[in-house]
Amino acid sequence: MFEISTQTVQMASLLISILALAFAVWLYTWVKSQPSSNARIAEIGEYIRQGANTFLKREYLILARFTAVAGVLIVLLLPKPIWNTNNISENIFMAVSYVFGTVLSALAGKIGIQIATIANIKAAEAATKGVKPSFMTGFRGGAVMGMAVVGTSLLGVTLVIWLVGDASAVLGFSFGASSLALFAKAGGGIFTKTADISADLVGKVELGIEEDDPRNPAVIADNVGDNVGDVAGMGADLFDSNVASMSAALVMATSLGGIAGKNVAMVFIYAAIGLLSSIIGVATARIGEKGDPSKALNTSTYVTTGIYAVLTALSTYIFGLEWRIWGATAIGLIVGTIIGITSDYFTNDAKPIVQAVANASKSGPAFTILSGFSYGLISALPALIGIAVTSLAAYYICDPLGPGYGMFGISMSAVGMLSIVGMIISNDAYGPIVDNARGLAEMGGLGEKVIAIADELDSAGNTVKAVTKGFSIGAAGLTVIALLGAFMSEVNTAAAELGLETISHFDIMNPAVFFGLIVGIAIPAVFSAMLMLGVDKNAQRMVEEIHRQWESIPGLKEGKEGVKPDYDKCIDIATTGSLKELIPAGLTAIIATIVVGFIGGVSAIGGFLTGNIASGLLLALLMSNAGGLWDNSKKYVEAGNCGGKGSPAHKAAVVGDTVGDPFKDTAGPSINTQITVVSLVASLLSTLFLLYSLF
Amino acid sequence: MFEISTQTVQMASLLISILALAFAVWLYTWVKSQPSSNARIAEIGEYIRQGANTFLKREYLILARFTAVAGVLIVLLLPKPIWNTNNISENIFMAVSYVFGTVLSALAGKIGIQIATIANIKAAEAATKGVKPSFMTGFRGGAVMGMAVVGTSLLGVTLVIWLVGDASAVLGFSFGASSLALFAKAGGGIFTKTADISADLVGKVELGIEEDDPRNPAVIADNVGDNVGDVAGMGADLFDSNVASMSAALVMATSLGGIAGKNVAMVFIYAAIGLLSSIIGVATARIGEKGDPSKALNTSTYVTTGIYAVLTALSTYIFGLEWRIWGATAIGLIVGTIIGITSDYFTNDAKPIVQAVANASKSGPAFTILSGFSYGLISALPALIGIAVTSLAAYYICDPLGPGYGMFGISMSAVGMLSIVGMIISNDAYGPIVDNARGLAEMGGLGEKVIAIADELDSAGNTVKAVTKGFSIGAAGLTVIALLGAFMSEVNTAAAELGLETISHFDIMNPAVFFGLIVGIAIPAVFSAMLMLGVDKNAQRMVEEIHRQWESIPGLKEGKEGVKPDYDKCIDIATTGSLKELIPAGLTAIIATIVVGFIGGVSAIGGFLTGNIASGLLLALLMSNAGGLWDNSKKYVEAGNCGGKGSPAHKAAVVGDTVGDPFKDTAGPSINTQITVVSLVASLLSTLFLLYSLF
Repeated sequence: MFEISTQTVQMASLLISILALAFAVWLYTWVKSQPSSNARIAEIGEYIRQGANTFLKREYLILARFTAVAGVLIVLLLPKPIWNTNNISENIFMAVSYVFGTVLSALAGKIGIQIATIANIKAAEAATKGVKPSFMTGFRGGAVMGMAVVGTSLLGVTLVIWLVGDASAVLGFSFGASSLALFAKAGGGIFTKTADISADLVGKVELGIEEDDPRNPAVIADNVGDNVGDVAGMGADLFDSNVASMSAALVMATSLGGIAGKNVAMVFIYAAIGLLSSIIGVATARIGEKGDPSKALNTSTYVTTGIYAVLTALSTYIFGLEWRIWGATAIGLIVGTIIGITSDYFTNDAKPIVQAVANASKSGPAFTILSGFSYGLISALPALIGIAVTSLAAYYICDPLGPGYGMFGISMSAVGMLSIVGMIISNDAYGPIVDNARGLAEMGGLGEKVIAIADELDSAGNTVKAVTKGFSIGAAGLTVIALLGAFMSEVNTAAAELGLETISHFDIMNPAVFFGLIVGIAIPAVFSAMLMLGVDKNAQRMVEEIHRQWESIPGLKEGKEGVKPDYDKCIDIATTGSLKELIPAGLTAIIATIVVGFIGGVSAIGGFLTGNIASGLLLALLMSNAGGLWDNSKKYVEAGNCGGKGSPAHKAAVVGDTVGDPFKDTAGPSINTQITVVSLVASLLSTLFLLYSLF
Repeated sequence: MFEISTQTVQMASLLISILALAFAVWLYTWVKSQPSSNARIAEIGEYIRQGANTFLKREYLILARFTAVAGVLIVLLLPKPIWNTNNISENIFMAVSYVFGTVLSALAGKIGIQIATIANIKAAEAATKGVKPSFMTGFRGGAVMGMAVVGTSLLGVTLVIWLVGDASAVLGFSFGASSLALFAKAGGGIFTKTADISADLVGKVELGIEEDDPRNPAVIADNVGDNVGDVAGMGADLFDSNVASMSAALVMATSLGGIAGKNVAMVFIYAAIGLLSSIIGVATARIGEKGDPSKALNTSTYVTTGIYAVLTALSTYIFGLEWRIWGATAIGLIVGTIIGITSDYFTNDAKPIVQAVANASKSGPAFTILSGFSYGLISALPALIGIAVTSLAAYYICDPLGPGYGMFGISMSAVGMLSIVGMIISNDAYGPIVDNARGLAEMGGLGEKVIAIADELDSAGNTVKAVTKGFSIGAAGLTVIALLGAFMSEVNTAAAELGLETISHFDIMNPAVFFGLIVGIAIPAVFSAMLMLGVDKNAQRMVEEIHRQWESIPGLKEGKEGVKPDYDKCIDIATTGSLKELIPAGLTAIIATIVVGFIGGVSAIGGFLTGNIASGLLLALLMSNAGGLWDNSKKYVEAGNCGGKGSPAHKAAVVGDTVGDPFKDTAGPSINTQITVVSLVASLLSTLFLLYSLF
């Protein structure tokens, strides 16, 4: 058994994050070196890249202003108001950590877009040579994102702890990451669905032209949307979850033995091993010449999980860490897998549920909606049981270690679920890359055979998504529970410093807690509704613009040589609109937190966060799974079942898919980020709520 | 200031309940004495009455078996298992109270159906003479139900307390009422939507015949559905809420000074005054010859509310009761009104939200669904804030009276909101009566002018529904909170008797509480999903039967004189199917409660009930309001807006309405009952959970 110092551990974490980044650079170079020769594909690919960069630039500009304002507020108010602290340097460190969090997250998003808009072209070309080269291009493109996101997040957290030496500052860093994730995920989600819906509504429904007809002014915006929503948004989301789970664990670890204690070291060791396992998993991913891409993706996930379990066990043995905490982490991993498998059951078109919804579509769209919505509600049950059992088991496994260890165990089970996040992001980012590649193959006229290969790769992306989504929803659930624990830690640290009474529980029978709880229930509902209505409003603006161009650009309708629609205008509308619609939703959640805190104090906030978790988990699971279910039911019908394409069942299934789009790509996945933001705002403002509240 | 004994109060309660019942008899006789001469209407009315009675008989037979089994289990296990009690008479009293609860609730439902199936015929006939006589017939018909429900519920609670002398026995009575309500509301809800959807699907969509064409074998089942779902179901539901709110208040009042104390007396005084105010409100309800029926209905609600406020203030002054508790009750009343007004804002077709959804329908059904769903989510906010503020205010107003008074204050605010329930039921039952009358007027060929009058009366029913629904949802929310308090009282009573430690809080940070909370979130979701899928499955069976009859009965298609479809077969399918689909849903909720209790003990149940409340309130508000919104959007389009009848917007709005039907009439309103049942099961089993649990 070796003693290991915190400094050594942090040094190792830094090295492994740098290794991940170096690996990302290597993968990037590899993907870039793949051949591309088709001029038409290159041209369209260039449009997509430019559009995505336009969105990012606009988004980052707004975010920079937001960050500047928030930074000033943090200096003035956090962790303690400057008129109430002797140590203003704490406030400055917090603000710097916050800005650092936004910058690193933004960087990871930018890298993701950069590679995704290259890899799509390369994967399309590679599909002419078969499944294997195209798969490897898509997968390695996704892995650049995976390595970049996890590398920068571990790097950032380690640096903040190293330089500032205070776990609270990590909360600032985490808040930075979350506020960016809110923009990237929710804003990107509105963008992608605005473009998708408007392009379809006018193109397919009104004008009866093909999905990817270049005469449609919204067609490029649609492809850009896949990148900004699914690649950059998803990356920022998981960057945020990963940082938040580490922050919560670090705050509790610090309160259980200080910043130099063994528990803090353990968080870093486990996180670093997770990243290392993902590097190995990505590096060893292989597929045969005629291999099955879904199997290849799932195999590399399971390989990573196995390596992680073995390495953490080894390190626990060698460094004499607590086996109980290892147990909590292992449970997180196992339950993550189980949640993934159950969500696959509800959304896979080879399973009975999707087929039942497709069958219901034969009676009309109302039945598509009713049955999909109902199964979506039911699908929440296994995931919620998984989260409940994990938290109960993790708590009781770690509780014998001493007071506070139970909650720390829960936070470590979240770290466990997210440990293989590098691998998860690689798989997730693979999806939109090969989806784009398929579109490019069609637009570039690469022929039926190539499109069939691209289709196969695309469908594998959808299948593995269910499993990775299981991990991310489960982990987000546990993370917000851990953040509730971190909130209580923060409150008690602040209360001790202010000479106030500390609190030991949030009692449901306390009216302030209950008040917060009931109001908290409404927040994720209102937030997600505002995003969905935002998509609706924004799509109306875009439909108008498409009509305008179609009528006013001479020769466009007829497809005259050299006449092109004004793609940029549509991208511009989607960009401006999405950010405009997102801001009120985000502010509503933040302002509600502040109001509840100043009315009911920290107790009300305890209830408020619980209410957010309760309704947020339910809605996120419902929306993600119902959305996936409707999407795959439509695909099932299109594959020739229940009457096939053009049948009444197909029309009904399309309605389900359209409803499901903003469910699963805009509102559902943004809810986790909203809860994280609200939890962090609450933790950061805990001193203020202690000092000033009505009740 | 007069001293008043508990016995005097109980005697007064009994007298007022008997007065209400006598008034119901007078109203019944009055309605029955109205003229009816149209033979065609009488014939159809007779079919409807027979069908409704068939359903009730079948339902009550199943319920009788269920009650017998539950009764035996109660004798064996509740409030304490017989191997663990010295006082087996407690168990017997509990079982008898339980049976008494089911019988009285069943009786109230039966009376409601009886009068509703007479009043519909009379109101149709009266419409030939103008708005006034038809309104009075519909309203007084509804009032029979209102008086019967509230009279029997107050009578029952008073008798149980008087004879058994133990507030816990009232929980048994309340459980009886709830288990009946579960059958009546959820079973009736499945019945009514099965019939409605199948009749429409085959009749309007496939065959293109009119809504009320007598050749459609499902047409009578559809009309029966209005009665069993809306009249009997709604009555049982409000019987249940009313009894549950009184039970929760009585359990807490007893723990604050015994069964003979002032607090128990106060509960009875306020409840009796509520009933008295409703009697006066109903008796004085008037409408001018050309009056506005909505205004008449709302006026009588406000009159009742005013009388209630004044009389309770007077009695508080005269008998020297606590002004603070009066304050909590008054807040309940005021917030109930506010919730009603906001839910009217979201569902009234003269207001912007309904019009926005109608406009969205122009882009297709997916947008009807997305926008209606989104606004449904947002509509939960004001109601939840109302409930949160009421509970916070009621708690702090009553808290200075001593420990335990805060929670008692919350329970009294629920009693306050439900005090005018007699009036609310009268208004609510008015709706389906005049709706039926409209159908009868059409089938009986009474002419355009009469139908127009019936339409006006019908639309008034829809408008006031929003306000009454606000009261019932708000009250249900507060009641379940109060039941959580009652659960803790029961746990502590049991713990003291068993010599175990009492508990003083449910701490969210306690892993058992959290475990229960997370599992609890899933239950209302799964329960409501199972009901909606039940409607779907049952409708498929019925559609098949309609097809069979249409093809196999000679002369039916052609409308040959004397040829009639087999109406009974359709009623039979709806009846059998609805009970078959309901039972698994109800059992799931009850079994989940038992499993969670035996795993995590009473703490886990505290969390479990909180989780149920959280997701249940959200889903109930979403489903009720979105359903109402879609219904009225369709009506708005049918009134000639957005393209009017037959336009694409109309088709889309019809999809919204069909989705909304089981939302608002099956799943949404059943959730409250499900939570009440689960809360009561938990309270009744508290001793068992204390004795036997894993954690």
